[in-house]
Amino acid sequence: MKNKILLPKLFFTKDVLTGQNITKSSRKLKDLKGIFKDQEAFDTMDKETLVYDVSSHLPVKEDTPGGLYFGVTYIHPGKIGNEYFMTKGHFHAQIDRAEYYWGIQGEGILILMDEDRNVWGEKMLPGSLHYIPGRIAHRVANVSNQILSFGACWPSDAGHNYKEIAENGFAKRLLEINGIPNLI
Amino acid sequence: MKNKILLPKLFFTKDVLTGQNITKSSRKLKDLKGIFKDQEAFDTMDKETLVYDVSSHLPVKEDTPGGLYFGVTYIHPGKIGNEYFMTKGHFHAQIDRAEYYWGIQGEGILILMDEDRNVWGEKMLPGSLHYIPGRIAHRVANVSNQILSFGACWPSDAGHNYKEIAENGFAKRLLEINGIPNLI
Repeated sequence: MKNKILLPKLFFTKDVLTGQNITKSSRKLKDLKGIFKDQEAFDTMDKETLVYDVSSHLPVKEDTPGGLYFGVTYIHPGKIGNEYFMTKGHFHAQIDRAEYYWGIQGEGILILMDEDRNVWGEKMLPGSLHYIPGRIAHRVANVSNQILSFGACWPSDAGHNYKEIAENGFAKRLLEINGIPNLI
Repeated sequence: MKNKILLPKLFFTKDVLTGQNITKSSRKLKDLKGIFKDQEAFDTMDKETLVYDVSSHLPVKEDTPGGLYFGVTYIHPGKIGNEYFMTKGHFHAQIDRAEYYWGIQGEGILILMDEDRNVWGEKMLPGSLHYIPGRIAHRVANVSNQILSFGACWPSDAGHNYKEIAENGFAKRLLEINGIPNLI
């Protein structure tokens, strides 16, 4: 294998990640209990509804210092009541670890929260690039009528602290009010 | 600023990085003395010839643990004798730090070398994704007749050890032989 010119083993074309060692995962409504506000609307929906998929390239073991991971997330369009389909959201377990997100297709809002629970958002569009510093919780909501896809690159020792968000949520919710997304 | 939905501050469209805090740098032939084999051919060329440009988003200070950087490199087409225009190449100063490269436009070869000086290459094409593990020196050569552009994401505490490559080079060179790139 060494001393040769090899073909690439991985491809990242538009918003599709293919090749060696791509891991796929998906989150259905049944995996997202308790994150949406409107429990009544949630209860009426099919729990097998797909909310988002992730394709990831994870070339080293989780927690490896100095390594990187690369992924694409696809959030389906939809709402629970007036709250947009969104990712679970997390701080990093190693809280100082940063992450890049970049919008590829569709339109969304990157929802950010610092450790003092201040919340703000950044519009995610095809071609937008977002630096998420360490110590900032992050989740993404799809506010369009099509799949929202975005790329991500993050350190292999970042980890995910989903617990904090599962227990205390974000301090604001992204709700559709008069057809417009608002952080309330 | 907090509690609001902001417009994105950065854009990464096709192979162009624009917005807040984008740093640009360029390497001309005069900055690349000694890296090409054919000194005679080098001497005849205009030292102001642009070999490559880099646009980078460097949101935190170099050496910040946990931070990330994002960049796009544009290597112009050209040769010194039969050796393709290429980047200087480096190990990371924190040698275990990884990096992702992904081809956007043009065609190149990512040249990789481990600490035992084994050298190999990976073709870089529009849509190819390359994981460069820690402890692997890396440089890119443009083997096409157009600008080769590629994206990169790397840790802010990776640093660059250019010295090792400046002093000892890579153990092989990428030369055009009968119109085809060969690692010799």
